[in-house]
Amino acid sequence: MVFEHEISVRFHHVDRAGIAFFGRTFEYCHDVFEEMLRAGGEPLEGIFERRGWGMPLVHAEADFSRPLQMGERLRVCVSVERLGTNSITFAYEVFGAVDGSLRSRVRLVHAFVSVDGFKKISLPSELTEALVRVGVLEEGS
Amino acid sequence: MVFEHEISVRFHHVDRAGIAFFGRTFEYCHDVFEEMLRAGGEPLEGIFERRGWGMPLVHAEADFSRPLQMGERLRVCVSVERLGTNSITFAYEVFGAVDGSLRSRVRLVHAFVSVDGFKKISLPSELTEALVRVGVLEEGS
Amino acid sequence: MVFEHEISVRFHHVDRAGIAFFGRTFEYCHDVFEEMLRAGGEPLEGIFERRGWGMPLVHAEADFSRPLQMGERLRVCVSVERLGTNSITFAYEVFGAVDGSLRSRVRLVHAFVSVDGFKKISLPSELTEALVRVGVLEEGS
Amino acid sequence: MVFEHEISVRFHHVDRAGIAFFGRTFEYCHDVFEEMLRAGGEPLEGIFERRGWGMPLVHAEADFSRPLQMGERLRVCVSVERLGTNSITFAYEVFGAVDGSLRSRVRLVHAFVSVDGFKKISLPSELTEALVRVGVLEEGS
Repeated sequence: MVFEHEISVRFHHVDRAGIAFFGRTFEYCHDVFEEMLRAGGEPLEGIFERRGWGMPLVHAEADFSRPLQMGERLRVCVSVERLGTNSITFAYEVFGAVDGSLRSRVRLVHAFVSVDGFKKISLPSELTEALVRVGVLEEGS
Repeated sequence: MVFEHEISVRFHHVDRAGIAFFGRTFEYCHDVFEEMLRAGGEPLEGIFERRGWGMPLVHAEADFSRPLQMGERLRVCVSVERLGTNSITFAYEVFGAVDGSLRSRVRLVHAFVSVDGFKKISLPSELTEALVRVGVLEEGS
Repeated sequence: MVFEHEISVRFHHVDRAGIAFFGRTFEYCHDVFEEMLRAGGEPLEGIFERRGWGMPLVHAEADFSRPLQMGERLRVCVSVERLGTNSITFAYEVFGAVDGSLRSRVRLVHAFVSVDGFKKISLPSELTEALVRVGVLEEGS
Repeated sequence: MVFEHEISVRFHHVDRAGIAFFGRTFEYCHDVFEEMLRAGGEPLEGIFERRGWGMPLVHAEADFSRPLQMGERLRVCVSVERLGTNSITFAYEVFGAVDGSLRSRVRLVHAFVSVDGFKKISLPSELTEALVRVGVLEEGS
């Protein structure tokens, strides 16, 4: 139960060491999160425009095993690791699309909050429905 | 009649070529624009929060004469090049703070618009007052 | 004689005003430049690794006519505007992929330099061959 | 035994939600890491130019407790959490400079590698000496 999307490592993502700056990996994962919501029919911009709730990051972590080279094509796989009352944890794996080697594992934890006041709310049903449609949650989760 | 501010070229601003990606220069100039508004008592975040108007970029251009190295300290000088009815043009010069050499000249043109509808409006008096206070406009401009 | 590529406006490209920061447009154009070189069989990372020459930006300019919204899909068209002895000028047009409306026109001028010493060199034949293959230059230009 | 540095949250760091994108926090911490090395007399650009070793990130994690607003001034405190044989762990705390409230805790683990081949090496003495000079390591660590 995984959503996949490909990403390119751009010239301006690469730092003085000749490899992608570690912070770019978090951006790539968020890009794939955005693609997943779009594929599920609930794009992030719509959430901002219409819903009254948000899902800010409360925790982020990454293990970097092999560097990302400029110009590389990456395959990013995302799954739901944990569904809490007020939060959701996504697990990402970043692979070289050509050599298939694992580059990073990333975990991103989002809290659900109301837009006014940043108060905790429970998992919005629009989100679970989108995640079911895209195949990373089972119906009835 | 110039406002000056210093900027550091960071590790993650530098690209595969070992020098700052050209797009970073536009970010540096905007950072200095933000510092100038703050110094004039009219910080950009306040404009967004309270005013009902904005000043999006309608034109940007830069000539890059010498590269920016990682770790370098830059001195950025900004002045008002032209005050139009519905727009303002700022001219920036970016120098190496140590060697004093010119690195780039940048011109940024902002239009004044109402936040609802992006309609042209005339120069907001809060802005001219801030630019007078910070010394880049003469009183009565 | 145009090369086209699509780009997505990401969450983290959008600023406090709710639209893409103007500097992102320059990044999008460079991303498309990278895709064009790759499509022509001469990817930028190979140039860095093997050739001994580079093509830093010496001038960049943009006219922004309509804002880019978060989540939007953009169609970027690039063509060769001018082929100089020591430089090349690319012209970019950025359109909304859905509504087809023009958002920005961008002009990027690259100089050709040797990697050691940043000395001007003439147009490398590998580059013209790649641009011919991708269809933005005529054979014999 | 802490090194402190202040950072500003810029307009282009802030996302559609009106607060800094979570990835920016990792950039801020790296900026402060660069300032610490500079203050210790061993700036990162010198390491790249002269030493033959590097210190890529192998792990990064952050807990975000309160959002960062556009225009805010942040105080970032960094200390050495753990000194391994082939790695070093820095702990960062990000505070609002005005209200003093904790915004994020970040942990960044760097491995030491030779530049050719990315092979593990032991802690370079130039680095420990710099960290002693800047006051985050005791002499003889």
